[in-house]
Amino acid sequence: MKQKIKIACIGIGRRGSNVLEECLAQMTDVEIAVLCDRYPPALQSGVEILKKKGRPEPVTTTDVDFAVQYPGVDAVIITTGWDGRPSIAKKALLAGKYTAIEVGCAFDLSECYELIEAYEQTGVPLMMLENCCYGRREMMGLRLAKEGLFGEIVHCAGGYHHYLPEVELFEDLGNPNPHYRLGSYKYRNCEQYPTHELGPIAKVLNINRGNRFMTLSSFASKPGGLKQAAKTLLGEDSPYAKIDYKQGDIITTIITCANGETVQLSLDTTAPRPYYSRDFTVRGTKGMCGEERHVVYFEGMEENIENNEEEMFEKYDHPLHREYHSLGECGNHEGADWLVLRAFFESVKAGTNTPIDAYDTVTWLAVAALSEMSIQKGGMPVNFPDFTKGKWINRESPVKSKYSLDEIIEDKSVPIFAK
Amino acid sequence: MKQKIKIACIGIGRRGSNVLEECLAQMTDVEIAVLCDRYPPALQSGVEILKKKGRPEPVTTTDVDFAVQYPGVDAVIITTGWDGRPSIAKKALLAGKYTAIEVGCAFDLSECYELIEAYEQTGVPLMMLENCCYGRREMMGLRLAKEGLFGEIVHCAGGYHHYLPEVELFEDLGNPNPHYRLGSYKYRNCEQYPTHELGPIAKVLNINRGNRFMTLSSFASKPGGLKQAAKTLLGEDSPYAKIDYKQGDIITTIITCANGETVQLSLDTTAPRPYYSRDFTVRGTKGMCGEERHVVYFEGMEENIENNEEEMFEKYDHPLHREYHSLGECGNHEGADWLVLRAFFESVKAGTNTPIDAYDTVTWLAVAALSEMSIQKGGMPVNFPDFTKGKWINRESPVKSKYSLDEIIEDKSVPIFAK
Repeated sequence: MKQKIKIACIGIGRRGSNVLEECLAQMTDVEIAVLCDRYPPALQSGVEILKKKGRPEPVTTTDVDFAVQYPGVDAVIITTGWDGRPSIAKKALLAGKYTAIEVGCAFDLSECYELIEAYEQTGVPLMMLENCCYGRREMMGLRLAKEGLFGEIVHCAGGYHHYLPEVELFEDLGNPNPHYRLGSYKYRNCEQYPTHELGPIAKVLNINRGNRFMTLSSFASKPGGLKQAAKTLLGEDSPYAKIDYKQGDIITTIITCANGETVQLSLDTTAPRPYYSRDFTVRGTKGMCGEERHVVYFEGMEENIENNEEEMFEKYDHPLHREYHSLGECGNHEGADWLVLRAFFESVKAGTNTPIDAYDTVTWLAVAALSEMSIQKGGMPVNFPDFTKGKWINRESPVKSKYSLDEIIEDKSVPIFAK
Repeated sequence: MKQKIKIACIGIGRRGSNVLEECLAQMTDVEIAVLCDRYPPALQSGVEILKKKGRPEPVTTTDVDFAVQYPGVDAVIITTGWDGRPSIAKKALLAGKYTAIEVGCAFDLSECYELIEAYEQTGVPLMMLENCCYGRREMMGLRLAKEGLFGEIVHCAGGYHHYLPEVELFEDLGNPNPHYRLGSYKYRNCEQYPTHELGPIAKVLNINRGNRFMTLSSFASKPGGLKQAAKTLLGEDSPYAKIDYKQGDIITTIITCANGETVQLSLDTTAPRPYYSRDFTVRGTKGMCGEERHVVYFEGMEENIENNEEEMFEKYDHPLHREYHSLGECGNHEGADWLVLRAFFESVKAGTNTPIDAYDTVTWLAVAALSEMSIQKGGMPVNFPDFTKGKWINRESPVKSKYSLDEIIEDKSVPIFAK
């Protein structure tokens, strides 16, 4: 068990700075030894964050190879844009470093196969930092599912229902690094951002451990919202109002599972709508939870119950959140960002596998590529690869700790690290 | 223009009695000349309803052919169980009678083709009594869509999210005529009840008039809820707790349209959940409406708005509902049952086509059969028949009246008939 670890952070953009400021710079058992970004002003702003928090000055570099191979570094955290992540992750694994990547998707299945090959060759853990897996609501749903209180799970759903033109897609246009999502929406048409919903759902459904995704079917509505938003926000004459964006406004995806469950995902970011929730939903034969109405429901309850989530937290909070909330708030996204990073670092310190492991990571990464294939074929189901090559039938939980997303383990012997 | 019309009612079960009591027996311009049911006590209860309301005593019969051919009858209303409707409707059309059928679905596409053949051969109108097309919310959505306030429509959704074991499926078991849905759930696995959502959506999307459904893909979760409900409600030893029901608990269906829109439907009746809404949703490039949060949203509105439907009714009520509400309440389902029947009877009286016409009717009827095919093929998209044989490209609205669901026509020259 290491008391202190050194990490390299690659990609100090919007998300990278945020993670650095809100979490990493406050975790004194984690030394940020290296900051890496191809854009020097981003590096400088990362250095400033660490200085402000009184942390040691890191080495800075624009060279990814230098960063992942830097002597003494135990782990690499990759928060670059979507396009570079898997190839950087592969370098980090081959350099023997625990590797964490921010949420996102592969463009092509080969990226997943290369990553899993690097993992199987080196045995070095790889973890997607899917913060929503550690959300309070999602962890309560996970607990209720694992404890059988929903009965047999039959269906799960979720959606990224967040209208982005005003908050992200066009707001950034003046910046030297506008959000890369806009470029992706210009050329691609698929479920490009599924993991906030799919990650927690995959854990509820025991994917890669006794269950697996079998087929994926995806459907795109016509596009129209982005062009309309560009007209409204930037004016009819803006070049952005003249682009024929490929990304359909509403992408609906259905995944079928080996054990007979269905999963429904929506990507809903370009047609105007209010923002309510990610609609995290678990349906079983004895009960359900649904984020949209903040409800946990068990058979026999009254027919129109809603907004009982707070009282359910009292009763069914996941032990990790019970402990976390007893410490006071740390980090943003209601603790999810903090906890997912702690889950990673505790694995690095203990030298174990990570609770979201390499197979989970590549399975979730694969969705965008599969979705694009299905949409191009008019909604034909495409086969979901079995990245475990059959090991899913007998695989155990990758880590036995309180951070496990496969079992509910209460353990106060190693308290949650708090600032 | 006929001042008074005579009708035959076939099927005086649960829904039939309800329609009789709440609407038909109160419409003094409509004489219920014939009641028909194969079950004599049902006939008797129909006679009692009419007697109680002071209406003339009808002829009663158990013979469908006798009923549809009864001299002087202008129109036939079919409210039997799901299985017999299309074949009875065909008889009625061939007998030259305006024909209305309650909502439901065909088991096989041949039923749709036979009906459309009978329609094309006779020219006699056929209308599905899809009451939700005349719901206040749905008609406001229709108006907003037709007036362009949502921009270009890209996606619609709806779901029958109603847990039925306690209210319908098992509650009836003591009755000599328990709900026929249970038998259907025992043997079939498909979207068996789509029209409450799909009817209004089809009208928003101009289906069969400049647009059409192209493909349908359907996905079933595993079943489990009904068996569990039978155990809970009837006991482990009940024969109903030992049935392996075929119907999946959650059926998700995606329809793609010629003009690029997607439609998502859910059938969600056997896994325990609260009842909120049918989730009628229309999404466009400038705005949306969504029943689940009772919201109408236009671009630029605040991000977390909800429950503004009442003020939107003030502003955007469909003229038919504005007039209807000025008359005071009649009938149940907030007037939808009354209005859909009046839409039918006004067409009979005027001798015009019906606002939901034969092509609409068979298109909506086809969904269950297509859904079953797709589910059996693992979610493969199946082609949606073009029952219009190409006429959809140039078809006009079937009726120019205030009951039109294709245009917003305000007309006070013929007031809504009220009791």
